[in-house]
Amino acid sequence: MQFTINRNLFLENLNNAMRAISSRASIPILSGIKLNLTDEMLTLTGSDTDISIEIQIPVNDDLVVQSTGSIVLPARFFSEIVKKLPGKDFSFEVKESFQTKIVSENTEFMINGLDANNYPHLPEISTDASFKISGKTFREIINETVFAVATQESRPTLTGVNFIFNNSSIKAVATDSHRLSQRQISLENGPQTSTDLIIPGKSLVELARIIGENDPEITVNPGENQVLFEVGNIAFYSRLLDGQYPDTDRLIPTESTTSVEFELPVLARSLERASLLTHESRNNVVKMTLDVQNQLVKLQGDSPEIGNVEEEIGFKNLEGDGLTISFNPDYLREALRASITDSIIMNFTQPLRPFTVVPAKQDVNFTQLITPVRTF
Amino acid sequence: MQFTINRNLFLENLNNAMRAISSRASIPILSGIKLNLTDEMLTLTGSDTDISIEIQIPVNDDLVVQSTGSIVLPARFFSEIVKKLPGKDFSFEVKESFQTKIVSENTEFMINGLDANNYPHLPEISTDASFKISGKTFREIINETVFAVATQESRPTLTGVNFIFNNSSIKAVATDSHRLSQRQISLENGPQTSTDLIIPGKSLVELARIIGENDPEITVNPGENQVLFEVGNIAFYSRLLDGQYPDTDRLIPTESTTSVEFELPVLARSLERASLLTHESRNNVVKMTLDVQNQLVKLQGDSPEIGNVEEEIGFKNLEGDGLTISFNPDYLREALRASITDSIIMNFTQPLRPFTVVPAKQDVNFTQLITPVRTF
Repeated sequence: MQFTINRNLFLENLNNAMRAISSRASIPILSGIKLNLTDEMLTLTGSDTDISIEIQIPVNDDLVVQSTGSIVLPARFFSEIVKKLPGKDFSFEVKESFQTKIVSENTEFMINGLDANNYPHLPEISTDASFKISGKTFREIINETVFAVATQESRPTLTGVNFIFNNSSIKAVATDSHRLSQRQISLENGPQTSTDLIIPGKSLVELARIIGENDPEITVNPGENQVLFEVGNIAFYSRLLDGQYPDTDRLIPTESTTSVEFELPVLARSLERASLLTHESRNNVVKMTLDVQNQLVKLQGDSPEIGNVEEEIGFKNLEGDGLTISFNPDYLREALRASITDSIIMNFTQPLRPFTVVPAKQDVNFTQLITPVRTF
Repeated sequence: MQFTINRNLFLENLNNAMRAISSRASIPILSGIKLNLTDEMLTLTGSDTDISIEIQIPVNDDLVVQSTGSIVLPARFFSEIVKKLPGKDFSFEVKESFQTKIVSENTEFMINGLDANNYPHLPEISTDASFKISGKTFREIINETVFAVATQESRPTLTGVNFIFNNSSIKAVATDSHRLSQRQISLENGPQTSTDLIIPGKSLVELARIIGENDPEITVNPGENQVLFEVGNIAFYSRLLDGQYPDTDRLIPTESTTSVEFELPVLARSLERASLLTHESRNNVVKMTLDVQNQLVKLQGDSPEIGNVEEEIGFKNLEGDGLTISFNPDYLREALRASITDSIIMNFTQPLRPFTVVPAKQDVNFTQLITPVRTF
């Protein structure tokens, strides 16, 4: 196996393939990156078994093949080495005993490789149920929901986001049972038959990074236990989570007795100040008082050791019954961070019932639900 | 104690005072910041006993005094709170039991303070032996030496930089016994009598930050066990290290049998590549081969697990006897990072004798010494 390649071209693709490689690989060979060279292309593969990424670099002026073959190299070192090579190009040659020679200008590295035959095979996924979606839409819906997945494994399905793709929309929902985020975006040319997938949160975070800031077209290939996303020359495989996702629709209240509208940054800054103290307390809880009669909204936080804070928050509209409610400020902060409108409405029913945070804009279908905390 | 102050003015000074406060304070009150208010000024004090910083903010339009007094507040929280207050100004009032009320716009914090009478007193230092130096010069000489101090306490004097101030120059030297950095800069109007101080490395790092990018005039007040640096409205106290600093002059070779001149960035990048592998090896050692006959300089590094690297380094001049020498690449990297010329000269005598790194410029009096490693 021997080739010469443009260093920047290689690095860009290597960095993407490395997103699948864990620093705590379960099997040693998975801390490596697999390179496979044919006369048509160089394929880079990284995997941590939950996520696998395969990237194809076609042979052209920037990639010249001398001889085909394959090898596995220690991923972190290999990428550090390529990053620090002096020249615009480098040459790569596998010698005996999987020793690999990398040469650029007057610098010559010799790296110990591993037999690529021992690298696990990627799953084969049928393209029968494939459909296409916009990368921008998919990245958005990931960022609006993934933060709410459970980080603990006690209920594995909750560590994923539940996606329901159909012909005219995507609906995504995530919950860790304390808070929930549900978003629906309309779609042109979705799949003919409704497709229900629970995709691990960690996979989605990496996928969103790979989609990047542009709007590439994504081909979604749902399989039995795996889903394959194709983004340009990148094939991104993720494990799917087994089991039935809970029916979350019934959790979301449809009516409210108190509602208040805030400009998002005003509420966010106020929460930040209150959290300074509540983060130091064993109970990370703020108290919000909605005094409809006097048209006042108050936020309070305290820590027995440090002190307390109390402030009036400016609001745009407050109506319904007066109410005092206590909740974890971090849930509301993350809900606000995911919000995409300048103003949001909080809808309440009772002090111990979940409340919703929704955009102050009719046409955005985005509901966040937060469970309050009993403080008495 | 009650006052109103401009928030940015206060924050800037608070941040400087906080440089003296350790996150692991030895006595609880030292995790606090002391505020003392007279009719003329507000004084902020932070200390970790090794370093103390006292800052004076004079009363003016931005600082209005309602009543004098003093208090100690938890430093980290207090600064976070002030940072996040909504308004341009805030008011500060000590109520009963050292409770302190901080109000800005509609936000009101109540913080538990401590009795300022329990805060340790700062040392009194006579100004008899005072002299003035340029902040820029002092920051430079700190940055050129402080990285070479010992980080282990087995020989306490080596954890400091030894400064010798006299009427026409400052000489600074630091060594951890593996490498040494010595710099001399000429001075106008230095002290009449030669002043010899061993200042802890940690104090110097903070002092350099306080000096900042400008060139403030610094008044140096050497005391018995402490030294006081006055920079603008900031008084910076540092403990001095006891004992006799070793006579380092006799360590520095005055002659050489091989010397090589490099452009600094060329050598630095080559070292970086070699370190990628040596950092993974139990022996963090590179081997430099100076082949005078063939006019070649080679650098090699290896790690038994990962592989090895070998490269030819471009140089500007190479003369004397051929030589192969092994050393810790981190020492040379730090020496290069402290260097202030575009090119440097390495002077060698024997493979197991210390070598020097000096500027390729006659008028810069700056010598770094590195002890090689025996590899056979």
